Amino acid sequence: MGRTANSDREGISELTTGRLSVYLRCLTFLESQGQKTVSSHELAEKFHLNSAQIRKDLACFGEFGTRGVGYDVSRLRRQLVETLGIDRVRNAIIVGAGNLGMALADYAGFNSNGFHIVAMLDTDASKTGKTSRQGIPVVAWERLGELVRRNRVDIGIIAVPGEHAQHVYDALADAGVLAVLNFAPVQIRLRHGVKVKSVDLRINLESLSFHLKNVEDGVIA
Amino acid sequence: MGRTANSDREGISELTTGRLSVYLRCLTFLESQGQKTVSSHELAEKFHLNSAQIRKDLACFGEFGTRGVGYDVSRLRRQLVETLGIDRVRNAIIVGAGNLGMALADYAGFNSNGFHIVAMLDTDASKTGKTSRQGIPVVAWERLGELVRRNRVDIGIIAVPGEHAQHVYDALADAGVLAVLNFAPVQIRLRHGVKVKSVDLRINLESLSFHLKNVEDGVIA
Repeated sequence: MGRTANSDREGISELTTGRLSVYLRCLTFLESQGQKTVSSHELAEKFHLNSAQIRKDLACFGEFGTRGVGYDVSRLRRQLVETLGIDRVRNAIIVGAGNLGMALADYAGFNSNGFHIVAMLDTDASKTGKTSRQGIPVVAWERLGELVRRNRVDIGIIAVPGEHAQHVYDALADAGVLAVLNFAPVQIRLRHGVKVKSVDLRINLESLSFHLKNVEDGVIA
Repeated sequence: MGRTANSDREGISELTTGRLSVYLRCLTFLESQGQKTVSSHELAEKFHLNSAQIRKDLACFGEFGTRGVGYDVSRLRRQLVETLGIDRVRNAIIVGAGNLGMALADYAGFNSNGFHIVAMLDTDASKTGKTSRQGIPVVAWERLGELVRRNRVDIGIIAVPGEHAQHVYDALADAGVLAVLNFAPVQIRLRHGVKVKSVDLRINLESLSFHLKNVEDGVIA
């Protein structure tokens, strides 16, 4: 019973986190447009969100806005940056310097505003010494422990084929990494204290398929 | 007002679709283990889901299960496959044969069980004629219209730099593609009837950052 309650709580906080990230993107946009204040209704209307949900989520973090005025855009933005813990720079490494690893190394959102990709690691000696287009180096897999220690890396990104993912996760955990983003399509056996977030890109295609089916069935014009 | 209500409905159906995809993965796993029936409680317990939400979501599609027995695993799985519209094969093309396009072309979930990647398109003539490791060919961008018509492609996947994404979206729409998966970190101006789903991979890092911050703050052990 204790376990279920715990997983539920983690599940909820993860959904909320996703929404906080969305609010942050909206506020960053409004700030770039020079807007000073915004109400939950305006946020909802402009970005296709739910205003009651916005108020509820923000109230969790002590943000209530001012009646008739709304939220202070810059202040709320700073508050979200702090809440998400991206007011400091977090170092990450990518394991696997194949097409996916290379794409992630140069992915705009991965190496800016709070995240820094230190290196890609690979077991293939012919890749070490090379860099991504943006200059992220590929280093030998054997240097994992040293790299994590020296750069205080707390995020590992798994971009290797499924059959190697568990081994990579275990090695990351041994090296002291506390959070792992997994792109391999396998279930990881977890160690206590080393969180995994798995990315399942296929879900996006299934959502589009659902839309197409509704068009075909005449549910949507 | 009408617009907001509509966006809300679409928002909700998109969230529900995501959950249906998750249920489908759970049922596929249970079926592979030879399990015949499953209750919403067991599903919730095993896969860290919410049992009331499961019952509510499935009831939307006319699935109620049998009291004391639960759902028939294979039947419910088939029903979800149909609901998501992946009981037929949908053809997709990837625009951009860089690292990201190549990684997506060979991504396990993108070329199996209901989805077929026809080709990658690229404007770089030095890339055409090559293939991904799994054999997906790179063809000239100019062949977009012909390729979409001949292969009845209804999904386009944008894997080009942000500055080209809008142009690619418009060309896909002109060619008759009805659904677009966008990996470029830009807002796309939509055309009526051509749905976009944008993938924001950074949200996953922010969620891990939130977890790390809670560990640092002593909220989580």
